[in-house]
Amino acid sequence: MRNKILKYFRDAGKEFVSGQQISDDLHVSRTAIWKHIKVLKERGYIFESSTRKGYRLIHAPNLLTELELNSVLTTELLGRHIIYDEAMTSTNSVAKEAARKGAPDGTIVVAEEQTGGRGRVQRGWFSPYGKGIWFSVIWRPTFAPQDASKCTLLAAVALIRAFRKMGLTEAGIKWPNDILVHERKLVGILTEMDATMEEIHYIVMGIGINTDVAPVDLPEELRGKATSFMMEGVRVVRKELLAAVLVELEALYAEAQRDGFARILDEWRAYSVTLGREVNVIMPNETYSGTARDIDADGCLLVDTPQGTQRVMAGDVSIRNRTRE
Amino acid sequence: MRNKILKYFRDAGKEFVSGQQISDDLHVSRTAIWKHIKVLKERGYIFESSTRKGYRLIHAPNLLTELELNSVLTTELLGRHIIYDEAMTSTNSVAKEAARKGAPDGTIVVAEEQTGGRGRVQRGWFSPYGKGIWFSVIWRPTFAPQDASKCTLLAAVALIRAFRKMGLTEAGIKWPNDILVHERKLVGILTEMDATMEEIHYIVMGIGINTDVAPVDLPEELRGKATSFMMEGVRVVRKELLAAVLVELEALYAEAQRDGFARILDEWRAYSVTLGREVNVIMPNETYSGTARDIDADGCLLVDTPQGTQRVMAGDVSIRNRTRE
Repeated sequence: MRNKILKYFRDAGKEFVSGQQISDDLHVSRTAIWKHIKVLKERGYIFESSTRKGYRLIHAPNLLTELELNSVLTTELLGRHIIYDEAMTSTNSVAKEAARKGAPDGTIVVAEEQTGGRGRVQRGWFSPYGKGIWFSVIWRPTFAPQDASKCTLLAAVALIRAFRKMGLTEAGIKWPNDILVHERKLVGILTEMDATMEEIHYIVMGIGINTDVAPVDLPEELRGKATSFMMEGVRVVRKELLAAVLVELEALYAEAQRDGFARILDEWRAYSVTLGREVNVIMPNETYSGTARDIDADGCLLVDTPQGTQRVMAGDVSIRNRTRE
Repeated sequence: MRNKILKYFRDAGKEFVSGQQISDDLHVSRTAIWKHIKVLKERGYIFESSTRKGYRLIHAPNLLTELELNSVLTTELLGRHIIYDEAMTSTNSVAKEAARKGAPDGTIVVAEEQTGGRGRVQRGWFSPYGKGIWFSVIWRPTFAPQDASKCTLLAAVALIRAFRKMGLTEAGIKWPNDILVHERKLVGILTEMDATMEEIHYIVMGIGINTDVAPVDLPEELRGKATSFMMEGVRVVRKELLAAVLVELEALYAEAQRDGFARILDEWRAYSVTLGREVNVIMPNETYSGTARDIDADGCLLVDTPQGTQRVMAGDVSIRNRTRE
């Protein structure tokens, strides 16, 4: 009901609406309406009131709460179940716990801040309050565990699509799924799964998007390596960007389950900044260099080296600077 | 200390040992020794006592407790940390919980009975009290998540090796990892994992071995489909069989991490009852028939059909009865 009342005010725009009017239209008592408005005020919503004309909404908090997201979501499945808290250790940890307890396919877990945000291979992920979109998606796909790694490529494609729609046109994908703008990292993705050899119980995909991080916010070690929408000069409202990302993720997820990954991998190739470049591949036991030629049908990176083509399933691949001409 | 005292009695064999003697040799007070013997008696150990000569152990319970397993284990890593309970819902569930909480590589989880034993694809696994070895192993391997499915092939190879040493020579492997004797199922394996795209957090491998299951124990739906060591006329002591399995698992696990899976897959081929046979492949969306020709380097089954070679990653493969000649 609180969602409905909020939507009612939003639809009314700059018009004042009276308690009586809402009561009549939504078939709810005026007492209940006042209670909901009181809670909304406590949560940062500001109403202008007029004794004669009633109320109008003049400010909504810039948060990724269920109330705010519900006002912008246009997805069918994704984000229709939301777990939100201002601060979480990491959204992936909360999502895995929820998935174990049976959270449905498409559940999203969102926080304003991660106090222990995790990146790949036990690295951290800088996630300051309100300066990015730190969220995880719980998937329960029907495809085989062997296809799971292609999901992270799918996510990167969805993000690029959404970013282009929001006005950021220069982002590209570094294999497998970092999103870079001018060689600086804008997004990190950490995908985890729980599976048997035959079926995936769940995939938890954690995505961190730097939106409002300013250079001054960045810890020393990230300066020159990280970027944000703000730093790239593109203004976004976080909830709108998240809604746009979820639309693309939902579409590609449905496509993958229906038609497989072939077309999505082609789109990945088009957005890639890795293919055709000289790369260093850093593996636990060895490091080598070569030319990143392509990805194969499994999403593995094919690197041509003097010793032949290497197939990289996982590992750190860094793009070598272009040599001076 | 209780382990040491028990081992002392076992080493003494049929000889009586006095409390004073143990006290001197193990540097522990006689009071402490009596207390430990009292606990051992409560747990089903039977001692014969003589006022003049002391005690000797004449019966140990046929259980898979830590005390009993420690008396037979010869492994370095595997089973050096044991979680035991008489009854568990499923050893895999307990193992996954323990793994999440940080249980070390090589931990085993053992129960006399599973009240909710799980098989592949949400099937059950019949696990009556004391009539089999129902256990799970927690692995924390260094190889990539994409190699995980080969672990279940590795496990099947280890089991065949151990079974041969214990006198059961006729067991073979049905792809991927069922152990059959005369086309009846002796062992089921359920492998689950928690991983990112780059690294395995843990693999939990549940193994159920029917040792003392008699035809009369079997529920209707398993008659003619399941077998046991007893039904095949091979007497085994459960703890000794488990110790033998752990030795082989440990050796192959070390080999896989050091040298990869190529040789192990060759050994798998030698034990296979699937290769060269006509099979039905039952997938979620289709069913087809063909000849199981080989497994590839990823452990996938290659099935020759009139439409070409199919590569089966996961799914149900049933061997078709030989046609009459």
